[in-house]
Amino acid sequence: MASATKPDAPRIDHVGVAVESIAAALPLYVDDLGCEASEVFDVPAEKVRAVMVSTGESRIELLEATRPDSPIARFITKRGEGIHHIAMKVGDVEAAVTRLRASGRRLVTEDVQSGGAGGYRYIFVHPKSAGGVLLELIEE
Amino acid sequence: MASATKPDAPRIDHVGVAVESIAAALPLYVDDLGCEASEVFDVPAEKVRAVMVSTGESRIELLEATRPDSPIARFITKRGEGIHHIAMKVGDVEAAVTRLRASGRRLVTEDVQSGGAGGYRYIFVHPKSAGGVLLELIEE
Repeated sequence: MASATKPDAPRIDHVGVAVESIAAALPLYVDDLGCEASEVFDVPAEKVRAVMVSTGESRIELLEATRPDSPIARFITKRGEGIHHIAMKVGDVEAAVTRLRASGRRLVTEDVQSGGAGGYRYIFVHPKSAGGVLLELIEE
Repeated sequence: MASATKPDAPRIDHVGVAVESIAAALPLYVDDLGCEASEVFDVPAEKVRAVMVSTGESRIELLEATRPDSPIARFITKRGEGIHHIAMKVGDVEAAVTRLRASGRRLVTEDVQSGGAGGYRYIFVHPKSAGGVLLELIEE
């Protein structure tokens, strides 16, 4: 199906899902639905381990906390397992941040972060400024 | 970036987001992030109106309840606005249902439904059987 998206328009890179156990969550995607999955990898900056499930151009990222003070552990304590964030790939994350600030939107951190899964630069838009969605903007 | 996904493997079709107001939620995606959006359309079967935001191969579907007994109205009452479901496009939804049932997974309805946005056939996997994710499987 043709997409109307402009070449430089944002794309969904992945949807993050908070799980108690990657080992328990993965068979749905791999065995039942036939998706391929990456190796499990650590993201120390977010105190999680993760696996990327291939789902076309986008991916589903299963996130398991490695420490009790991980944002993923706190999310599960508060809301249970489930969809945690949408990550969109943008051409220029600083330019996006400038536009978001001009619209009065709140970001989770003051500055763009480094060290995400795959080494990309990223920042989160606060759910209070994004209709309840934790929206990650990433730039490779 | 090349994808390792097989041609017949499931792909993310869209991510559904429950919002109080499409008019209030849309400017983030269109004005701040530069995405294109469809016209607003009704999905009577789910008692919602919706808009599709183009984000590459996948889309973000903003969902606004049209009746107080809409699943989207109940979701917002219980959890607030936010990410509601992930929809994956599969080649053969009946075959997927057969595999899911064989794995003991619970589906939201007994049968595959018709009349989704765009006229596709669909069924939802229950969050209790999908690590807290409301997972929609659709077949065009």
